Amino acid sequence: MSTIQMPVPDAGIIAQKPQIVAALQAVLPADAVISDPAETRAYECDALTAYRCPPLAVVLPRTTEEVAAAMRICHDMGVPVVPRGAGTSLAGGALPTADSVVIATLRLREVLEIDTSNRFVRVQTGVTNLSVSGELAPLGFFYAPDPSSQLACTIAGNIAMNSGGAHCLKYGVTTNNLLGVRMVLASGEIVEIGGPLPGAAGLDLLGLICGSEGQLGIVTEATLRILPRPEGARPMLIGFDSAEVAGECVARIIRSGLLPVAIEYMDDVCLRAVEGFARAGYPDCAAVLIVEVEGSEAEIAEQTERIRAIAAALHPVEFRSSRNDDESLAIWKGRKSAFGAMGRLGDYLCLDGTVPVSKLPFTLRRIGELSREHGLEVANVFHAGDGNMHPLILFDANKPGDLERAEAFGRDILRLCVEVGGCLTGEHGVGIEKRDLMSAQYGPDDMAIQMEVKSALDPRWLLNPAKVFPLDASQPWREGTAR
Amino acid sequence: MSTIQMPVPDAGIIAQKPQIVAALQAVLPADAVISDPAETRAYECDALTAYRCPPLAVVLPRTTEEVAAAMRICHDMGVPVVPRGAGTSLAGGALPTADSVVIATLRLREVLEIDTSNRFVRVQTGVTNLSVSGELAPLGFFYAPDPSSQLACTIAGNIAMNSGGAHCLKYGVTTNNLLGVRMVLASGEIVEIGGPLPGAAGLDLLGLICGSEGQLGIVTEATLRILPRPEGARPMLIGFDSAEVAGECVARIIRSGLLPVAIEYMDDVCLRAVEGFARAGYPDCAAVLIVEVEGSEAEIAEQTERIRAIAAALHPVEFRSSRNDDESLAIWKGRKSAFGAMGRLGDYLCLDGTVPVSKLPFTLRRIGELSREHGLEVANVFHAGDGNMHPLILFDANKPGDLERAEAFGRDILRLCVEVGGCLTGEHGVGIEKRDLMSAQYGPDDMAIQMEVKSALDPRWLLNPAKVFPLDASQPWREGTAR
Repeated sequence: MSTIQMPVPDAGIIAQKPQIVAALQAVLPADAVISDPAETRAYECDALTAYRCPPLAVVLPRTTEEVAAAMRICHDMGVPVVPRGAGTSLAGGALPTADSVVIATLRLREVLEIDTSNRFVRVQTGVTNLSVSGELAPLGFFYAPDPSSQLACTIAGNIAMNSGGAHCLKYGVTTNNLLGVRMVLASGEIVEIGGPLPGAAGLDLLGLICGSEGQLGIVTEATLRILPRPEGARPMLIGFDSAEVAGECVARIIRSGLLPVAIEYMDDVCLRAVEGFARAGYPDCAAVLIVEVEGSEAEIAEQTERIRAIAAALHPVEFRSSRNDDESLAIWKGRKSAFGAMGRLGDYLCLDGTVPVSKLPFTLRRIGELSREHGLEVANVFHAGDGNMHPLILFDANKPGDLERAEAFGRDILRLCVEVGGCLTGEHGVGIEKRDLMSAQYGPDDMAIQMEVKSALDPRWLLNPAKVFPLDASQPWREGTAR
Repeated sequence: MSTIQMPVPDAGIIAQKPQIVAALQAVLPADAVISDPAETRAYECDALTAYRCPPLAVVLPRTTEEVAAAMRICHDMGVPVVPRGAGTSLAGGALPTADSVVIATLRLREVLEIDTSNRFVRVQTGVTNLSVSGELAPLGFFYAPDPSSQLACTIAGNIAMNSGGAHCLKYGVTTNNLLGVRMVLASGEIVEIGGPLPGAAGLDLLGLICGSEGQLGIVTEATLRILPRPEGARPMLIGFDSAEVAGECVARIIRSGLLPVAIEYMDDVCLRAVEGFARAGYPDCAAVLIVEVEGSEAEIAEQTERIRAIAAALHPVEFRSSRNDDESLAIWKGRKSAFGAMGRLGDYLCLDGTVPVSKLPFTLRRIGELSREHGLEVANVFHAGDGNMHPLILFDANKPGDLERAEAFGRDILRLCVEVGGCLTGEHGVGIEKRDLMSAQYGPDDMAIQMEVKSALDPRWLLNPAKVFPLDASQPWREGTAR
């Protein structure tokens, strides 16, 4: 089994299950509290399916006030709370513990306000990422962050993990597009942070909330910055016979001052899987870049020419620029199906780390060496423009020891990211997956001030407590409390 | 005199001055500690000159370690610390109290690293804002935030106040361009937050630090995002015979989806002052907009045409687009000298609040009405594109009661900003100026969680304690501590 240590659940809380469920049922609608083990099983894991644990109960509120009522009860009874969006976390961010109540935002689905004059939308956070842009499309606007899971994932989860996506190179990730939140604290108190305008008087808590992985509160409403849709956008596909040279091409595009909307990278392992699955007509080579530019026809043409010249100096095996919408769809088709295609090859661990773009060539070479050392194949498909890598480590879950080897390989890759000046996570969060690697990124003092801030907002460490911070570092913080 | 209540200095600390100075001198170079009242007087105020108070002592460190040494002593002896950049704060952010030690970052002037491949620069925070872009200019890059005081103000102060500037409409304010900091906490501990890459594992403390007005620590090094210089930029000048119609023009430009680099607004009072001072050749009308667009020649021409069409529908009295660099300079000349020109008219209070751009016409009309009610003239010159207003209230400091009337007028304007959905501050910070208005923006719970976060990083409330939070709200927080 896995090498990640799970916290020991509090038997005293588990023994109190009937009282906890009764207290929740007393303040919430009948269909909002799930406690039957046959039903709570649906919430035993998120998209990091290697880890599973059914929670004590699940709460599915429809309003901020219902979230607050549930939180107050958990707070008063000392029950850990695991916030959950759509459960698409790849880092185990929504993984429950046996002594926890899952509070999910799925039913908070209202779009509350659309204001194109002041460029914001206000939604309940159970709406899916894609449906926000869906609402805005008829008005000529869109919401920029676009995680691969955007059909399913919710704005609540996007905020918790500071989600990104292919188009974040130009428009930034969630934190750059979040203007305000309504949030329920661990105590059940409801607070408003930020608003339709950027900026704040006093301490700017918004950036702190974004990416806090459900450890500071549950965000029930969000005000999001929206953008007018560009006149047009057009991708190009560039194939190279060397991963390093493809990485160099990314670094040169960024250095040139061009700002494409997206620069996506796929290596040969991924390309073969995609061709077998989606038949996108990609070239058979070591690495492919998809670079998308946008603007007026003239702007698109000018940027395409500049990128063609940068690529040409590196002798690509193929350069294909889209001339119309059909060709654009064809170029994107394989990339969009990459994760599905990889899933057909077998089990994989999807990693998430960032490196400086100038270090992409070196990092790609080292990942290849590590793959040979660990004896496991790796596929690279990621947002190259901002150095946000997603190596997929292939393994066989039915083969004893394979998951542990994949995890060890994954740890080496993430340590490599930190060593070259990068970060443990780009957009998936730390969750439980990277919890024990936090000390590779932070010294004890740097981690301590994060935990002090967490303690300020959640003094009893009831919110998603087994995540983000190594258990041996965060455990003492909880000992001094009422739990 | 002023209506703002100053905290009562701690006589016990003042009595200990010789011991405090001796302790500082023991760990710092001789020229780094100033305690002679004739010399500390230079630090008795910042650009909000209506408030003055010489500090107990001033420390001028050259390294992070010297800052840490000074902080440790102040912490151990319970002495409040007032961090100071260049002292250009318009909100009294660097105003000392009689029992405080000022720690200034002025001598931390090294540029540590420039990396155009990964688009960042790392500097000590005593460098001036303008000198950062100055270093980058030969390489074809620039640092985006450009406060009016950029010749003098330091990066430390920019971070403390989350400074903006005319070009922030397109590129965002300091928080959107800050990647990492090295910071000394109240305890003297040195921490690293963020780094060359955006994003963080665990809690993102960077957004919290930015705009924290020296209340969480002293930032001694900063990693800043840099941008390639655009191909070209060109302003246009649009004159209207009504302030409201000018405001409507701003709202329509934003709503159209265009994203100019800057939209600046000047009203008739300001225009007359500027003409008398700089002879910029501005039209004699109720309001002038300066709109700057950038990109290639074709992009500039296209955007200029679209803005011309939007303005034409509102019947401007003048539309002048620059055809060359000389004309560009002429259009900017008056705006850049506006604050100097206003200073020649007499004393003024420079306010800073934000409103949704769609509310600009209404807000401008109400400010005119308030001006008549309070019997004081007001000039409006501000960053209209992001709704960041800077009304200048004219008064006579030698006329008894005039400052108080100006302050009362100012409070009404800022309350108006909050009422229409805006914020107390856009880029100057709360400081001491807007401290007592925080409750107009925040409920007690919203303010309490800010103070809890402040307490987590500065449990004794030693860092810039008389600022940001109303004295009656923050005082109890300090009573329970060792001070």
